[in-house]
Amino acid sequence: TVNGQALWHDLTTTATFGGTAKGGICRLALSDEDFQVRAWFEQTCKALGCTVTHDSMGNQFARRAGLQNDLPPIMMGSHLDTQVTGGRFDGILGVLGGIAVLRALHDAGIHTRHPIEVVNWTNEEGARFRPPMLASGVFGGAFTEEFASSRTDATGITLRQELERGGFVGEEHCGQHPAAAYFELHIEQGPVLEAKECTIGVVTGVQGMRWYEVVVRGRSAHAGTTPMLMRKDALLAAARMIDQVNAVAQAYAPDGLSTIGIITAFPASSNVVPREVRFTVDLRNPSEGALQGMEEDFLRRMQECAQAADVEVSITPTWNSSAVHFDKRCVACVRESGKELNYSMQDIVSGAGHDAVYVSRVVPTAMIFVPCWQGISHNEAESATQEDATAGSNVMLHAVLKADQE
Amino acid sequence: TVNGQALWHDLTTTATFGGTAKGGICRLALSDEDFQVRAWFEQTCKALGCTVTHDSMGNQFARRAGLQNDLPPIMMGSHLDTQVTGGRFDGILGVLGGIAVLRALHDAGIHTRHPIEVVNWTNEEGARFRPPMLASGVFGGAFTEEFASSRTDATGITLRQELERGGFVGEEHCGQHPAAAYFELHIEQGPVLEAKECTIGVVTGVQGMRWYEVVVRGRSAHAGTTPMLMRKDALLAAARMIDQVNAVAQAYAPDGLSTIGIITAFPASSNVVPREVRFTVDLRNPSEGALQGMEEDFLRRMQECAQAADVEVSITPTWNSSAVHFDKRCVACVRESGKELNYSMQDIVSGAGHDAVYVSRVVPTAMIFVPCWQGISHNEAESATQEDATAGSNVMLHAVLKADQE
Ligand SMILES: NC(=O)NCCC(=O)O
Ligand SMILES: NC(=O)NCCC(=O)O
Repeated sequence: TVNGQALWHDLTTTATFGGTAKGGICRLALSDEDFQVRAWFEQTCKALGCTVTHDSMGNQFARRAGLQNDLPPIMMGSHLDTQVTGGRFDGILGVLGGIAVLRALHDAGIHTRHPIEVVNWTNEEGARFRPPMLASGVFGGAFTEEFASSRTDATGITLRQELERGGFVGEEHCGQHPAAAYFELHIEQGPVLEAKECTIGVVTGVQGMRWYEVVVRGRSAHAGTTPMLMRKDALLAAARMIDQVNAVAQAYAPDGLSTIGIITAFPASSNVVPREVRFTVDLRNPSEGALQGMEEDFLRRMQECAQAADVEVSITPTWNSSAVHFDKRCVACVRESGKELNYSMQDIVSGAGHDAVYVSRVVPTAMIFVPCWQGISHNEAESATQEDATAGSNVMLHAVLKADQE
Repeated sequence: TVNGQALWHDLTTTATFGGTAKGGICRLALSDEDFQVRAWFEQTCKALGCTVTHDSMGNQFARRAGLQNDLPPIMMGSHLDTQVTGGRFDGILGVLGGIAVLRALHDAGIHTRHPIEVVNWTNEEGARFRPPMLASGVFGGAFTEEFASSRTDATGITLRQELERGGFVGEEHCGQHPAAAYFELHIEQGPVLEAKECTIGVVTGVQGMRWYEVVVRGRSAHAGTTPMLMRKDALLAAARMIDQVNAVAQAYAPDGLSTIGIITAFPASSNVVPREVRFTVDLRNPSEGALQGMEEDFLRRMQECAQAADVEVSITPTWNSSAVHFDKRCVACVRESGKELNYSMQDIVSGAGHDAVYVSRVVPTAMIFVPCWQGISHNEAESATQEDATAGSNVMLHAVLKADQE
């Protein structure tokens, strides 16, 4: 089993890179804080006897040699970037849990057949560069490297510029890294495991998710002189659209989810009726068919709102990640390990996207969930216990050892 | 009568300071573009034999001596700052119309009893520093100089810093400038005069207006894992509030107006349910009693929305400009001048706030409106004709000469 105290110590140490006053983390992808935690990752893994490299998308690989180094490695990992007001476990736990497994192998002097690797995937959150899971997406062939490199943040800086600034453009082409299996440990980020008092979630797949950018165009006008009936108010129209985006999820309850996270109005002056409003839409459903239905419903409702408000609307799909079913053998490795270790368990479909989604396109993959407090995530109050974090890492250790025998 | 071609030439020249690709103007208060137009104002007025000074709020006064220079001046004016995507007439016409009057007096060699002044008031729009009519507000005693100087723009720069940067902190204390009368020429910014085919609006007063900042507080949560029923979505709540702010105006139709011009959501990530949304509210009504009713209705509706959505709301009043009735004698000067000149006319209450609102607290005041195309204002497409601009200036010339005899 892994050293739970060392794992917790690592979680506490890394929380200082971008730590916020409210106990969360703001460590946007390829920010100075991200460079700090990346340096910490490299040092820590080297101290455990690993070699550390990165590929052309800045994905970091810490490799512990195996007995048969011509075999492709068994990988564990997740991401070290966070949301703007992110928590201390989302992503980080999967990387530090991987390090905990390396440390357990190291301390016990265990020699695996395959090399064992821990990966830190670049820009998983999509908080700085949209869409999420960008570098694992290139790894899995979902995005081209050109597309990913040219993504810009809110200030117009490209991902490529930031990779160069940090010295993270590696020689190895992203995606040319073979692997035998991939395991990702993560907090659930939802309320199911806590409610069912389970320690381990055996993740069988990930729900489908689609993103859109909506642009509403009306006409700017003076707030004091333009009669209500003569206005083409882009924000009033957008407000009614937001309500209708919510109605889409209600129509597909309880599985369907819809969220608007970003909204901007122009020209943004108190006494000017807004001429243009832009907002993002995130639709999710575990069933690809139902998700398609949600999309059609959503598009129809937006057109109806636009017509009723006499404004124009244009909708651009910006991301589409299909529902995923993980590799049966890898899922079995997780399930059997949990059983052996006597943890309470339950199968679960992930509501959040993870690097495992795209990695699973090219490598047999499974995920392990542990509970988080009240299901709260993407929030500085995100919290998990040392006990559960250790349990999840133990399951990952055993799953890796099982996969090593196959 | 004034020289309409020279007036039009001035309008074209000043439109180059901050001119936009779409034919509008972006000349925020105390920006570099504003400094350019201020320098132009000073030069142009000096060429007409005026002395040009500014007070401690950066208000510029161009003074043409009279026969009795111990008499307080008769003032004309408005503002040279614009909205972010503002038009070519809002404010500017009142200052350039004043210059056209100076030019007519100069060319005809007319000597008035009172000195005649043209004023450019600082930061009328409220687009850069909120609230609007800030420097005329200090002049009229509505705001203290400390309050006005410490207003900040979106980047945190204070009005005072920008006044200093431009060298516009004058020795004369703002408000210590006596005046016998004040006339402000302005485009209507609304559709009434155009619809009634009138050239001149005799402005009898200005409607009441109140501003608020609304803060909605929910809880940030993951877009993919948080069941719809467990969310406290600040943006969904805000959307419903925006709809209800609109309903307030509908309940007080047709006189009541409500507008939301600025909205910001935090943390602004596509896959995070917003925890906080801020928006501005602008309520207007020509009747102070009805405006009070609107405020109460608005506050009640916001509380109801917050309760229904399980979020918190806090509402801060940020500006309150009571309904104004202009000076009867000044209004009569305008009405009689329009009659003498044989223009089609109509009495009108201004929907927009103007510097005249605050100046009228300390100086007998009236305003002259001319039509603008389709009533569109605070928009780059804002437009007015040379004919109407000239007519309005002619009325102002005659009104000033009448006031000079009283
Ligand atoms: N795990 C996680 O929060 N990933 C971001 C992608 C998503 O929005 O699900
Ligand atoms: N005239 C004008 O647009 N003034 C700004 C103040 C207002 O919002 O009415």
